[in-house]
Amino acid sequence: MNLPDFDRWMQQQQALVEAALQTWVPADAPAGLGAAMRYGVLDGGKRLRPLLVLAACEACHGLSAAALRAAVAVELIHAYSLIHDDMPCMDNDVLRRGKPTVHVQFGQAQAMLAGDAMHTLAFEVLTAEPGAEAAFDTPAALQARLCALLARASGHDGMAGGQAIDLASVGRPLTEAQLRDMHRRKTGALLLASVQMGAACGQAGPQAWQALTDYGAAIGIAFQVVDDILDSTQESCTLGKTAGKDLDNNKPTYVTTLGLDAARRHAQALREQAHAALARSGLRAAAALALLADLVVERDH
Amino acid sequence: MNLPDFDRWMQQQQALVEAALQTWVPADAPAGLGAAMRYGVLDGGKRLRPLLVLAACEACHGLSAAALRAAVAVELIHAYSLIHDDMPCMDNDVLRRGKPTVHVQFGQAQAMLAGDAMHTLAFEVLTAEPGAEAAFDTPAALQARLCALLARASGHDGMAGGQAIDLASVGRPLTEAQLRDMHRRKTGALLLASVQMGAACGQAGPQAWQALTDYGAAIGIAFQVVDDILDSTQESCTLGKTAGKDLDNNKPTYVTTLGLDAARRHAQALREQAHAALARSGLRAAAALALLADLVVERDH
Repeated sequence: MNLPDFDRWMQQQQALVEAALQTWVPADAPAGLGAAMRYGVLDGGKRLRPLLVLAACEACHGLSAAALRAAVAVELIHAYSLIHDDMPCMDNDVLRRGKPTVHVQFGQAQAMLAGDAMHTLAFEVLTAEPGAEAAFDTPAALQARLCALLARASGHDGMAGGQAIDLASVGRPLTEAQLRDMHRRKTGALLLASVQMGAACGQAGPQAWQALTDYGAAIGIAFQVVDDILDSTQESCTLGKTAGKDLDNNKPTYVTTLGLDAARRHAQALREQAHAALARSGLRAAAALALLADLVVERDH
Repeated sequence: MNLPDFDRWMQQQQALVEAALQTWVPADAPAGLGAAMRYGVLDGGKRLRPLLVLAACEACHGLSAAALRAAVAVELIHAYSLIHDDMPCMDNDVLRRGKPTVHVQFGQAQAMLAGDAMHTLAFEVLTAEPGAEAAFDTPAALQARLCALLARASGHDGMAGGQAIDLASVGRPLTEAQLRDMHRRKTGALLLASVQMGAACGQAGPQAWQALTDYGAAIGIAFQVVDDILDSTQESCTLGKTAGKDLDNNKPTYVTTLGLDAARRHAQALREQAHAALARSGLRAAAALALLADLVVERDH
């Protein structure tokens, strides 16, 4: 796959995800809740997690209808976490994806509820409407497995736990190992789960499953290392969110812990680990995953 | 089943639920998150929703291990919703189950995160650890069905949607139909789902399923009618939460909409509907469900 083909592939997949989100995030949820939910998740972001789900599913020749559900679900979890993280009692951020954050636009109560409803909606999307199980496009065992992977990545042992460590780390220097543990949970777990959910939609054997797990873990850390580099070197208008925020908040980052040059070398080393994992996966259709690893490391926002 | 037997049954089931919550809600979640989660859900409340799950499962001769998971999951969703609802941007309540609310005790950020982590944990409890599916106590199809029922009851079309209507209703008189729609979502949907999740753990046929659905819908509304009656007639120290709150906040209730006497008659009528539904269910072991309907209507806190 060359770069123009990859760009085309990305655009196609992003359009699929956008259309699915349009369908599943309800416009008619009561009392303005639907509007806040849609504002918080439609037309924004690179859709990196959905792309990882879909690429991993393709690499494993998996069930595309199930993967699209998984892609939407993981994006809903990501979007809910951004809404809650941005709130005044957490990071108190007013700008996200170049727009006012949800609580600025709709008020704190509606923002919290919209996040909660999106969190739940992820598990609605993954499972069959009760009574309509027979005609559903995803087998019951796969529904359960996708719920299990998504929940374990986003709860106390994953994203929410990482966020708790993050809150407690303000003004405390962390070792690289502590920083890695925090980010493995806070950002890495959901990126890894994206890859694993895609792989679960196929019939990945143990060797491919382990290799994709290694791949997902490497890009999960790389993503945060690059985030920290961009936060310290880019302007807000490029990032679409407030730059220098972690520094201002006295939060430890890979840049403050390792230094900028070492952080950059670390990101490249993680990219090589991700590529090496794909090479030993035995999967032939892993080109999109390889290029997504490059994208994670080379992106400028 | 006579009343002493019912009391014994309740105590046994409550002890089972408490022990399961003790096991599943992690003490060691990072950075104080586990402590906030445990504070928010352990040793508090009547466990009405878990009791409904377990009683419905018994009535359908269902799989008790699955029902215990469902009982824990529904209580985690209920507890997370209380934590978020109590926060300053929502109802701003400082007392719950006779104790300071979670945000008073742990701060708003930790309270929001603890609620989020409990929300996710519900779906972890319902599903097998990836890789350990073969030895799991609940069949995959039932895992998926329980997730589907729980998610649909707690999202935009259920609890979260009802909460959005509730927020928007402050200072607005509602008709009885509007009030019923709000509470069907906000409180009723999760009570109904408790009954349905228990029924799903058995092999309820279509007749029993429909009757239990009617039963769950009736007690779902009855619960809120009685809540509104207690809120207007009881003291805070009996309720374990701030009394008169809805009146103070100028929120419509069954008492303000119907008047106190009509609200009391309505609660009794709903109890009779619940009993009638059980009578046509064809289930012989539904005594606990019948007594739980009485409990919902006769409780004083």
